Amino acid sequence: MAGSRRPGRNFLFVPGPTNIPDRVQRAMIVPSEDHRSSAFPELTLPLFEETKKIFKSREGQIFLFPATGTGAWEAALTNTLSPGDRVLASRYGQFSTLWIDLARRVGLDVEVQEEEWGTGANPERIEEALRADREHRIKAVLVVHNETTTGVTSDIGAVRKAIDAANHPAMLYVDGVSSIGSIDFRAEEWRVDCAITGSQKGLMLPAGLGLVCVSKRALEASKTAECRRVYFDFADQAKANATGYFPYTPALPMLYGLREALRCVEDEGLENVFARHRRLADGTRAAVQAWGLTLCAKEPKWHSDTVSAVMVPEGINGAEVIDIAYRRYNLALGAGLSQVAGKLFRIGHIGDLNELMLLGALAGVEMAMQDAGIRIQPGSGVAAATEHFRSTREG
Amino acid sequence: MAGSRRPGRNFLFVPGPTNIPDRVQRAMIVPSEDHRSSAFPELTLPLFEETKKIFKSREGQIFLFPATGTGAWEAALTNTLSPGDRVLASRYGQFSTLWIDLARRVGLDVEVQEEEWGTGANPERIEEALRADREHRIKAVLVVHNETTTGVTSDIGAVRKAIDAANHPAMLYVDGVSSIGSIDFRAEEWRVDCAITGSQKGLMLPAGLGLVCVSKRALEASKTAECRRVYFDFADQAKANATGYFPYTPALPMLYGLREALRCVEDEGLENVFARHRRLADGTRAAVQAWGLTLCAKEPKWHSDTVSAVMVPEGINGAEVIDIAYRRYNLALGAGLSQVAGKLFRIGHIGDLNELMLLGALAGVEMAMQDAGIRIQPGSGVAAATEHFRSTREG
Amino acid sequence: MAGSRRPGRNFLFVPGPTNIPDRVQRAMIVPSEDHRSSAFPELTLPLFEETKKIFKSREGQIFLFPATGTGAWEAALTNTLSPGDRVLASRYGQFSTLWIDLARRVGLDVEVQEEEWGTGANPERIEEALRADREHRIKAVLVVHNETTTGVTSDIGAVRKAIDAANHPAMLYVDGVSSIGSIDFRAEEWRVDCAITGSQKGLMLPAGLGLVCVSKRALEASKTAECRRVYFDFADQAKANATGYFPYTPALPMLYGLREALRCVEDEGLENVFARHRRLADGTRAAVQAWGLTLCAKEPKWHSDTVSAVMVPEGINGAEVIDIAYRRYNLALGAGLSQVAGKLFRIGHIGDLNELMLLGALAGVEMAMQDAGIRIQPGSGVAAATEHFRSTREG
Amino acid sequence: MAGSRRPGRNFLFVPGPTNIPDRVQRAMIVPSEDHRSSAFPELTLPLFEETKKIFKSREGQIFLFPATGTGAWEAALTNTLSPGDRVLASRYGQFSTLWIDLARRVGLDVEVQEEEWGTGANPERIEEALRADREHRIKAVLVVHNETTTGVTSDIGAVRKAIDAANHPAMLYVDGVSSIGSIDFRAEEWRVDCAITGSQKGLMLPAGLGLVCVSKRALEASKTAECRRVYFDFADQAKANATGYFPYTPALPMLYGLREALRCVEDEGLENVFARHRRLADGTRAAVQAWGLTLCAKEPKWHSDTVSAVMVPEGINGAEVIDIAYRRYNLALGAGLSQVAGKLFRIGHIGDLNELMLLGALAGVEMAMQDAGIRIQPGSGVAAATEHFRSTREG
Repeated sequence: MAGSRRPGRNFLFVPGPTNIPDRVQRAMIVPSEDHRSSAFPELTLPLFEETKKIFKSREGQIFLFPATGTGAWEAALTNTLSPGDRVLASRYGQFSTLWIDLARRVGLDVEVQEEEWGTGANPERIEEALRADREHRIKAVLVVHNETTTGVTSDIGAVRKAIDAANHPAMLYVDGVSSIGSIDFRAEEWRVDCAITGSQKGLMLPAGLGLVCVSKRALEASKTAECRRVYFDFADQAKANATGYFPYTPALPMLYGLREALRCVEDEGLENVFARHRRLADGTRAAVQAWGLTLCAKEPKWHSDTVSAVMVPEGINGAEVIDIAYRRYNLALGAGLSQVAGKLFRIGHIGDLNELMLLGALAGVEMAMQDAGIRIQPGSGVAAATEHFRSTREG
Repeated sequence: MAGSRRPGRNFLFVPGPTNIPDRVQRAMIVPSEDHRSSAFPELTLPLFEETKKIFKSREGQIFLFPATGTGAWEAALTNTLSPGDRVLASRYGQFSTLWIDLARRVGLDVEVQEEEWGTGANPERIEEALRADREHRIKAVLVVHNETTTGVTSDIGAVRKAIDAANHPAMLYVDGVSSIGSIDFRAEEWRVDCAITGSQKGLMLPAGLGLVCVSKRALEASKTAECRRVYFDFADQAKANATGYFPYTPALPMLYGLREALRCVEDEGLENVFARHRRLADGTRAAVQAWGLTLCAKEPKWHSDTVSAVMVPEGINGAEVIDIAYRRYNLALGAGLSQVAGKLFRIGHIGDLNELMLLGALAGVEMAMQDAGIRIQPGSGVAAATEHFRSTREG
Repeated sequence: MAGSRRPGRNFLFVPGPTNIPDRVQRAMIVPSEDHRSSAFPELTLPLFEETKKIFKSREGQIFLFPATGTGAWEAALTNTLSPGDRVLASRYGQFSTLWIDLARRVGLDVEVQEEEWGTGANPERIEEALRADREHRIKAVLVVHNETTTGVTSDIGAVRKAIDAANHPAMLYVDGVSSIGSIDFRAEEWRVDCAITGSQKGLMLPAGLGLVCVSKRALEASKTAECRRVYFDFADQAKANATGYFPYTPALPMLYGLREALRCVEDEGLENVFARHRRLADGTRAAVQAWGLTLCAKEPKWHSDTVSAVMVPEGINGAEVIDIAYRRYNLALGAGLSQVAGKLFRIGHIGDLNELMLLGALAGVEMAMQDAGIRIQPGSGVAAATEHFRSTREG
Repeated sequence: MAGSRRPGRNFLFVPGPTNIPDRVQRAMIVPSEDHRSSAFPELTLPLFEETKKIFKSREGQIFLFPATGTGAWEAALTNTLSPGDRVLASRYGQFSTLWIDLARRVGLDVEVQEEEWGTGANPERIEEALRADREHRIKAVLVVHNETTTGVTSDIGAVRKAIDAANHPAMLYVDGVSSIGSIDFRAEEWRVDCAITGSQKGLMLPAGLGLVCVSKRALEASKTAECRRVYFDFADQAKANATGYFPYTPALPMLYGLREALRCVEDEGLENVFARHRRLADGTRAAVQAWGLTLCAKEPKWHSDTVSAVMVPEGINGAEVIDIAYRRYNLALGAGLSQVAGKLFRIGHIGDLNELMLLGALAGVEMAMQDAGIRIQPGSGVAAATEHFRSTREG
């Protein structure tokens, strides 16, 4: 939006930040207020409770940091672990790489399991590594639920089973930044000790809020964890949060926005939100198939319902598709990162979207691909997606 | 938006009201202020000047009524004519019908020229009627520039020539509600005496402002015109407007919104705005052809660049397409009115739109048509439109 | 707000437009939508019902015109009367003068009762005039409830009694523009046939909505009334409104804003709203007394709870006080109009106000008066008002 | 704003968060956008430059963290210092205490200089301590410019001179959270190595942005500093910022808001902003004197222009004044914290304020004080402030 006039709306199909619903946008237009007032907890106390639902947690404790998902990553690790602690982490994309890098920089000893990009966390290898760790030096297992680099969703329930099967006491930390609120996530059923997300994805808000849902066990661990933290300290937050306050000035519009975003999810129904994401993702995948292209995700079991990474044919630069889409058609797509740079483009289908928005984007992808020299049957992807939508409508 | 949660954006493809650009939406969020303050004319005086540009007028006088286009219709007639005055009006749709009805109800004697729906004003017949009027009893010729009922644009330049050819002193009044700001309109070149529009079409604002651009000749006529008017009186407005004020409290957000909407048009370039509407209309027409359907407009010369009325096949109720589009796909289409009720549906392609928004809507139209039993090749319309867009891109 | 930066908020103490509460401001930020959609009546049908409460009417019919109070004046008269009909109207300020002027211009025969400015409608004289009208040529009695020119509120209940006492069939039309929603108004109890207001006063919205609450009797009269009207026609509205629609495009943001404004009133309680206006008015009057000045209103019984017109001492120009207040202190006061021009300034205390806002304004009035050469004891008015507020607090 | 309807505006007179100007509020209403787009740097690159002006820095580097002032404190220390490094810090209020606490928790060795609350940093003692530190173990001097607990502003120029006089290489870190943008601050002239602020004070935004302006010397130090940081890492930011991007998703509305807030400051003129704060503070101090009360600040040289801490008489609980002000008069005042709890209340006069807003607040303070049993002459404070404003007006 910076700069000169482009008519109509931008089609934002990156895997976050996502579109902000009008009613959430409105809810954020609030005057400043005294966050120490006696009325303030009327806003905050229910908010902590309501936020848990999105994590499918009842017992967990919610922390709301004026930060981003990166801050929430840091909060999870530094509050519950000590320098030198070993953690086990799978790497299969840019975001798992960044989290591993962060873990190392806060002083942890990270044992990395490399997985092929286009696949995800491998429960069998995790179980194996944990079984091999007889001394229980591994304190936590780190998994990125939805790796947006490649459009891959890992099976967290299976990871939980692997940990249990190994009979290992390691805690389970999950990055759900691009899944929570969009793809089914069960913090309690899967006994996730730290579930992490940011406001700008499934929660349909601007960036600016880093959320962590923390298990009782992880909270207990925070009492002795020695990594240094102040801004991101759980204890400071917990103490103030208990009566509805914060240790430092909260980002008010984000709190009011979060309240309204949660109401949006409640109005639609969380399971309906998941089903909608699945439906839009299936439509996208039908389009990709109709174009004769393939996804980066190696098998259907890895398919992400929030982002599809589409491989471009040999000789084509994925970055050019993205560039044309943005400049000519006002369509924002996600780029290929790191080892897949240039080899793919990504269609984010996450957040406040419906069929027609997606179909407009798919039409834009078709034009951009053709402009960039990819041969496809014009209209084929849109047709396949509409066929999917029409054939699967209920009621 | 009333009611429960529908994810994503509504696709608003009625021929008005149109989408409000974000920056215009923002500009309208203003606190109340004293409209008698010494600072107020800083807003209003330039606004009267800037508004003229959208009419392509330099000499005209702009009136901004807190009303709608209907009010502007009434203002134009009552300020410049007297009860019993004869006017000549062409009828070829619901809006020309309504204006004629209004003219009669304010006391005018309307001579109606019936034209087939799907065509527009006939300059030859107008010339003929004026030539026949030797006593110059006809005081004004009324033409609807763009009849949204049928998606027909009339040739106002030709009407002007017809009046001149007849050497008749009748004034020329044009309803440009769904054309001004979207389709080329030349108030000065065509010597339009009253050019009428509303805020919720090409001006990309909510309804609530009725605009009239009045020629010196019509202003002169207003001095002796005897139709009763108070709220819509030109003289009261003109007197107050001269120093930047209004005779009664103006609708402030609309004025601030108008200022920003005009800046949007200026930033894009008025001719570019027209070209964009043409381009989107051509894309729509390519889709209609690919579907094997026809427009209500009888010939290309009647094609409207702001709305396409698509005839449905025999045995299909156009209203059902519209109903399905709205309920299933969150797509708002225009209905068939009066004698074309049920026989067509209308795609408005006016205002703050771009290619992908239209393509999403066309995909929605395809789905709704198929759901309603119309056989088309899935994706064919979208493909035809994308082909048009791709083949006509510059730069 | 036009123009350069002035820090902090403008203190808007004209008797309308009034401050828009944040939540009403937010509610008005709506995307355009199809006002012919099947969902639209969910907004409008309850709105017609809710609006009646503010008039204290159950039987009346509400008309919502995209216009201002002036338009509502015109609607009331033209829908229910015929050219040449006689009406009786009291004149005691600029707004009663304007309404009388409008009545004449739409063709009515107005019998004017002049009252001293600073007083209001005189029920005894009205009764007298009606008794004298043995042929019942007077079709309606027109009264401005709250004359903002002078800060005078008339007793509508007494006017009703006068009409009844004269046993005269004249209808009763009341301008409640600056009273309804702020000062007790009882359309049903007083059997007001047309009660008129605008959106920008007690309803705390921008200007742009003219409201009329019409009795069954007046509706019946509209069937035969011959004054010309189209835009303001009751029948067109009533027909469309019956199913939740409008005869022409409504001003959407105003409808959403009205819904929220009515909720504000409901949340506070209508009687509490009246009490708050009384309280703020009493505080203002205490300040005026402490300054040693007098009101334009001749006696306490005329005191308006929405505006106080303060007489300036001989040799002082009220306009200068207003000018200084605006330029130096960012305080907007109302000017003296017509025969009281220069002799007074007006403090509007209407709408979304509280004690501290008023006290800030009174402090500003003190400074501006002193700057203009009026000798007062600094702080005296503020002190008197605070004393009033403190001594009358409940709970 | 949480909860039920309170008419009119809240008077927010805590020393932050401060009122958000309408135009800044509007500027923050932005759709989500791709922060990796080629257009994005058009927003950000000028923003980094413009932000420097508020610090009066040309050479410094600006860091904009999606965080609060607390995060900026942490960023400044962890990026430039190593665990065990000694820093010298003065303590004279709650915020200096909290910063010292944070410094210790990130692993620094803090030498604390206790100053009486109501006074500030003592340049002589600082010079003394630095002279005593022959081995130059002290790496940095930490000073809170404006201690809001007590309403005390310290003389940073004098602290700089003290460091120079001691000929000591310690860096100078200044918390300017409640001064920068409101009280003259000269990062470059005073050679401040890390100048820290938050968005919710002089910058008139919501909380959510932590800003640090860093000298070349401190940047150099960051290359070897060993305190752990990732989220708050300067190098990650600097690398991405260089081309207009961020290492993780930025809080977009805050960036757009910051741009507009800086334009507000530019439109008013930074020196005029300072003068306005001085003027409002002087008015407040005149009121306090008229009430017969004293400030917590021991001498005029400590007077803060952004907050006045008013001592309550013996036997009165300051918290009760605050509670009454909030509940009865919708006025938010700051509480006494820690060792001054109950002994004072604080009037914040910072941000987007003008005379009348302050006068309304002072009237509210008068009422609340009287309600709480403090004897004052009603209106006396308001009168004294208005006298100050009137007598010092220019032009």
